[in-house]
Amino acid sequence: MVLVATRNPLNIGAAARAMSNFDFRDLRVVNPYDPAFREARSAVGAQELLANAQEHRTVAGAIADCTLVIGTTAGRHRELQHAVRSLDAGAPIVRKHLRTTDRGRVALLFGSEKRGLSNADLSHCHWLLNIPTREQHPSMNLGQAVAVCLYEMVRTKRTAIKTATTFQPATSAEIDRITVLLLDALRASGYLNSQSAASAREKEKMRRMVCRLKLTDADAELWLGMLRQILWKLQAIK
Amino acid sequence: MVLVATRNPLNIGAAARAMSNFDFRDLRVVNPYDPAFREARSAVGAQELLANAQEHRTVAGAIADCTLVIGTTAGRHRELQHAVRSLDAGAPIVRKHLRTTDRGRVALLFGSEKRGLSNADLSHCHWLLNIPTREQHPSMNLGQAVAVCLYEMVRTKRTAIKTATTFQPATSAEIDRITVLLLDALRASGYLNSQSAASAREKEKMRRMVCRLKLTDADAELWLGMLRQILWKLQAIK
Repeated sequence: MVLVATRNPLNIGAAARAMSNFDFRDLRVVNPYDPAFREARSAVGAQELLANAQEHRTVAGAIADCTLVIGTTAGRHRELQHAVRSLDAGAPIVRKHLRTTDRGRVALLFGSEKRGLSNADLSHCHWLLNIPTREQHPSMNLGQAVAVCLYEMVRTKRTAIKTATTFQPATSAEIDRITVLLLDALRASGYLNSQSAASAREKEKMRRMVCRLKLTDADAELWLGMLRQILWKLQAIK
Repeated sequence: MVLVATRNPLNIGAAARAMSNFDFRDLRVVNPYDPAFREARSAVGAQELLANAQEHRTVAGAIADCTLVIGTTAGRHRELQHAVRSLDAGAPIVRKHLRTTDRGRVALLFGSEKRGLSNADLSHCHWLLNIPTREQHPSMNLGQAVAVCLYEMVRTKRTAIKTATTFQPATSAEIDRITVLLLDALRASGYLNSQSAASAREKEKMRRMVCRLKLTDADAELWLGMLRQILWKLQAIK
């Protein structure tokens, strides 16, 4: 990650934080406007990363050891000399480069908040990366653009997410018991005609409705308990 | 996009800017710490969006007309009552919801910078969304998290094709009404202690359960009717 001529130290801090979030370590800064950038406060959790950031006078110096250099652009460049790839199309190329080359160091360049990368900066780049945005408002906040790019770079590197305890669906028998209890409660409450036994059609309709709830077995237990109590009360007072 | 109890107005501005970049318009703010949030300066290009932001006192009010409510989490929640989806897995579900339902309003909730969403906030959510980050540093800057989420939502945006409407999901307001009726019926039946008003925790738990039913609006109507009748009967005989 190379930040060129960044004006606001808070943006350097924000970039560092996103790097830390997405597990990138190597931050390089070219001619920041404010040399006090290392103190940037928004870098929650990224102090070490900021402290270790390399500072360079030139883009050439910052990317000297890199084998693939990619510039970012909001896509308003007058005469583009480079291929421009959308972020989702470019990221797999970066990943492949890192995977297949031994010396695969990739530099991702971000320009200043106001002007982006200069033509001189761009001349170091193999190709350009663009985050697809609304045409009328393509200019993103620097920290946000960095976050979005890094997210995409690791997007398919799936760290297993612990899902909430896996759910067991309710059995058909449970669904049937709920259906019967519900019908009884509805008859006891007067919602359904209590004289006639529930017609088969009525029961089918109700079972379909209970089915649509896609209950888990835990929730089925809960509903059975609630309905039993409601039914008991309704019948006790009749 | 719903921002809950955001502390720093700059983060609201940053969220608005990302929304503008990715062509989202509807910003709602619940109890921001600083009522002067509309002046947030980092909202370059998003002033109109900020000026039109709705301000709400409660999460329930902010999402009342939404049919799918998704909470965001850094995944450190002690006891997860919800399914958690990684961003890349969750986004297609959101897009499908918007494509296939006429009343498809999706709310994406972001909590405060410090604490994220509370359990009460989460009880309104159908499921949770997590941005996969480094385990040792999962907490993202709010503005950056918003940008990454919205980027992913439009990442593969193709011409929206509206398929013949199949089902309409229930709105959050309908889910809330069902929750309240159900609690009343359970208290009237003695399943819950009728003396004490339902504790907030009890209501949260019940709302999560009703949320899990994934009711359609037709079924929501049906349940409201059934519960009203049951409750009426229970109360009539007391």
